[in-house]
Amino acid sequence: MIDQKYIEAYRNRSFNSFFEENPRRYDEDSADKGLIAFNAHLGNSFSEIDQGNDFKTASEQSPFTGDKLGVTYSNQTVDANITLAKSSQLSLSKLSIEHRFAMLKESLDNLEKRFFELAYATMHTTGQSFMMSFQASGPHAADRALEAMVASYLELNTFPNKVDWIKDFGKFQLKIEKDFVPVSKGIGLVIGCSTFPTWNSVTAIYANLMCGNPVIVKPHPTSILPMAILVSEIRNATQNYNCAVDIIQIATDTLEEPITKQFTEHSEIKLIDYTGGNQFGDYVEGLEGKVTFTEKAGVNCCIIDSVYDMNKVAGNIAFSASLYSGQMCTAPQNIFIPKDGIRNGDEKLTYSETVELIKGAIVGLVENPKAGPGTLGAIQSENTLKRVSEYNSRDGVLLASKQGSNPEFENARLATPMIIETDSADYSSYSEECFGPIIFIVKTDSTESSLSLAKQLATEKGALTCLCYTTDDSKKEHIRNTMNSVFVPVSFNFTGAGFVNQHAAFSDLHVTGGNPAGNATFTNSEYISKRFVWVGNRYM
Amino acid sequence: MIDQKYIEAYRNRSFNSFFEENPRRYDEDSADKGLIAFNAHLGNSFSEIDQGNDFKTASEQSPFTGDKLGVTYSNQTVDANITLAKSSQLSLSKLSIEHRFAMLKESLDNLEKRFFELAYATMHTTGQSFMMSFQASGPHAADRALEAMVASYLELNTFPNKVDWIKDFGKFQLKIEKDFVPVSKGIGLVIGCSTFPTWNSVTAIYANLMCGNPVIVKPHPTSILPMAILVSEIRNATQNYNCAVDIIQIATDTLEEPITKQFTEHSEIKLIDYTGGNQFGDYVEGLEGKVTFTEKAGVNCCIIDSVYDMNKVAGNIAFSASLYSGQMCTAPQNIFIPKDGIRNGDEKLTYSETVELIKGAIVGLVENPKAGPGTLGAIQSENTLKRVSEYNSRDGVLLASKQGSNPEFENARLATPMIIETDSADYSSYSEECFGPIIFIVKTDSTESSLSLAKQLATEKGALTCLCYTTDDSKKEHIRNTMNSVFVPVSFNFTGAGFVNQHAAFSDLHVTGGNPAGNATFTNSEYISKRFVWVGNRYM
Repeated sequence: MIDQKYIEAYRNRSFNSFFEENPRRYDEDSADKGLIAFNAHLGNSFSEIDQGNDFKTASEQSPFTGDKLGVTYSNQTVDANITLAKSSQLSLSKLSIEHRFAMLKESLDNLEKRFFELAYATMHTTGQSFMMSFQASGPHAADRALEAMVASYLELNTFPNKVDWIKDFGKFQLKIEKDFVPVSKGIGLVIGCSTFPTWNSVTAIYANLMCGNPVIVKPHPTSILPMAILVSEIRNATQNYNCAVDIIQIATDTLEEPITKQFTEHSEIKLIDYTGGNQFGDYVEGLEGKVTFTEKAGVNCCIIDSVYDMNKVAGNIAFSASLYSGQMCTAPQNIFIPKDGIRNGDEKLTYSETVELIKGAIVGLVENPKAGPGTLGAIQSENTLKRVSEYNSRDGVLLASKQGSNPEFENARLATPMIIETDSADYSSYSEECFGPIIFIVKTDSTESSLSLAKQLATEKGALTCLCYTTDDSKKEHIRNTMNSVFVPVSFNFTGAGFVNQHAAFSDLHVTGGNPAGNATFTNSEYISKRFVWVGNRYM
Repeated sequence: MIDQKYIEAYRNRSFNSFFEENPRRYDEDSADKGLIAFNAHLGNSFSEIDQGNDFKTASEQSPFTGDKLGVTYSNQTVDANITLAKSSQLSLSKLSIEHRFAMLKESLDNLEKRFFELAYATMHTTGQSFMMSFQASGPHAADRALEAMVASYLELNTFPNKVDWIKDFGKFQLKIEKDFVPVSKGIGLVIGCSTFPTWNSVTAIYANLMCGNPVIVKPHPTSILPMAILVSEIRNATQNYNCAVDIIQIATDTLEEPITKQFTEHSEIKLIDYTGGNQFGDYVEGLEGKVTFTEKAGVNCCIIDSVYDMNKVAGNIAFSASLYSGQMCTAPQNIFIPKDGIRNGDEKLTYSETVELIKGAIVGLVENPKAGPGTLGAIQSENTLKRVSEYNSRDGVLLASKQGSNPEFENARLATPMIIETDSADYSSYSEECFGPIIFIVKTDSTESSLSLAKQLATEKGALTCLCYTTDDSKKEHIRNTMNSVFVPVSFNFTGAGFVNQHAAFSDLHVTGGNPAGNATFTNSEYISKRFVWVGNRYM
């Protein structure tokens, strides 16, 4: 049996973190050592993972310095990856569920010693600020991995290994021995994304391995290094458990020569986990004969009906929309405000006053020399910058995106948040997902109209979350029920340190799987049970 | 909380039955009363279910008497069914999980009082013998329904309704209230089959209702009455729970004018449960935007390697293959015997001797005036009779199918089991599913060759089960692992009262969902979790 505290944390949903609150403290020089370890990778081959002699240079480039990372990764051919994965499977399936758990936990504990190195690797591939890189790729990802392991442990132990079944016929008893075997589905492909390379992929990796499925990781070509560090630590952990190292492999490619479809369309790939844009995600979901788990994009809305303190609300919205320059899948994009204004405590605020407070809060945050750069981070992809530039010249720009500056990194790829003001009737202007620092303030007829639009967008485009401000309990219930009916969770009246973007492991579910934003959830039982098949044998 | 005994029975997998072993005994005149109640339906409208004035006569005809049942069923239009289902949903979702459980349990308890009526209805639509009709549609179906309810209860209670999440920031504490809502997916369509109208559909019906999904039942046009009785009792049970009666409706059609596709292709149908042939099943699985649960057909194999007592084995195989004239999805079709014979205890049996013993056991069973008719039952469909007649003239017929006789029902539609002997090289002759009393004895090169063929058939055609006889423990493990790898359960060395056909609720899993025989399992967590979506809301 694994430690009961993990099971309780998974079931109770009120837990914080096993890695943030770990009594183990980081040494004072951890950050320096992490930076040194990161720098040692630059321009070198990633020798920790030995997968043959074909070394490919990746498309990795730091959004902060503009420098190419120049790390090269050893690669097999696609068929060789598949063959190695297949031949590793038996050693994994022979490990007991408890041993799989122990082995994978060991990989996380060893990874923890490299959280600072991982943070720099994440920062200089994704453009996340150092603090976010540390949290997201470090403790938060490790917690989500552990959560997926616990969920797997529970699913794999739903039924007993062996039972005696006895039926009394009066004159005699019929006795049948039975066993229940969780048979793994086969090789799992895990396709990473550019912005949260490990956080978004660890659940799939750890769930697959718990369920006996060898994994081939295909990171985004611009964000490989964090994933390579993670994969390396899992490979290291196999050594103490008499398990083949190739239960996890990494396959890298470049933007120019993508190889992902060679894997997705391979008959031996049975499971595909994908995080990324909708077009490729829809393709993945449509593949025949594969079990798929997707997190794509959605259009997240914020509904403002009534507030206790609009200044606090504006500050909260500004932070959520600006954090990592809007490059989070949970960032609010559309802010719906009724044309007749809102109730602010005992007062009334007009629509324009409300808009001004939000705009002011964003400007204040962005221009704050202490908080601004660390909140915004940098822009991961040149495509996002192009999109911002294009939207800057559209009608209704209330706050234009500027290049901004980061005193620490003068070559950083930056773009401050922009606000486009639009009317609810102009549906096409705000109904597409605009990845990056693009915020729409939408003037609606009423809160009911805001809700109706948020529901429509969730149904048509998908949504990961909805932020809502209302002081009216009956409206709260109505809005919750309405958004829940299209499988969107609502966060109500968030101010202070509570942000809609953040989904904590062992507490929040990430993506519902019920609308076009994705077909899976971190982490519920379905996320696990689809990865293996129960087979019950009988013996007389 | 529901009674812990249900949860323990679900988890322990060693339980027999809540309905067979019920201390409640049937009254002495129960069978007579059941027959009277059944007879009262004949030629009449099924007035218990009032669904409007459009009464359709079904295609029901007794395989035992040849008489048309002449029962008419009230029907709505497809759109009216959908509208009523939708409008009923709120009352179902407002019921607590515990109340849904209590309501549905009440329906089973009331149904139990009609088990004899249900048995006659099943017998005179499916052709099952009275005993099988009683067991399968009565206690065994009720147990499977209850099992699905318990599985649903557990899944719906995975996460707590409400929690307080508190994060300590040192200077202050962040407190967020959270709730976790299991949101139903929408209307579920349950498509019944002709041979086991209730047994194969109750899991879907009860799981859907537990998960808050209104159900439209579309029975096979030749086997409606058993399903109508079941639906009626669920509708009755809604009355005590302030729940709309239309959470379950029945939509009937005829062989000549099928309506199923009007439902399967309706945008409001979100879930489809299907039992039946592969062609329509493949179509159902391919429907976009639907969650589907299928049990189709497969080619089940019996591998004979070595036995302790071939007489007992032959008797067991004869019964399993002859029961309900091979019209069970779990019946063995292909019996693989090595050309060099098998070990029988301390002796050796040649291939021919082994074949003769099986043939002899089948003839003995069929010609036994006491056991024969009750084992064979009658042939449900004219198509099966045609298939038998066609196969009777094929090469290799070792035992021809005869019309046989049933002294109780002189007009019964009967066909005794036939045996076709073939060589393993003649793959096409035995690789198609031959529904009905058609058994192939396949001469193979070796047990390894038998296994290889069984594996290939499971991969290509699907299989629900595999029967195997071997006294060698290492072969046992090898055969188990090989068949499990293609997601087929194996039953070893069944003799006496243990039959491969029987899958008991609260113990055996029915269909693995991992091969072409179907994509779902009675009943695991995935069978439930796909029917609703977890949504987690947050409040500050």
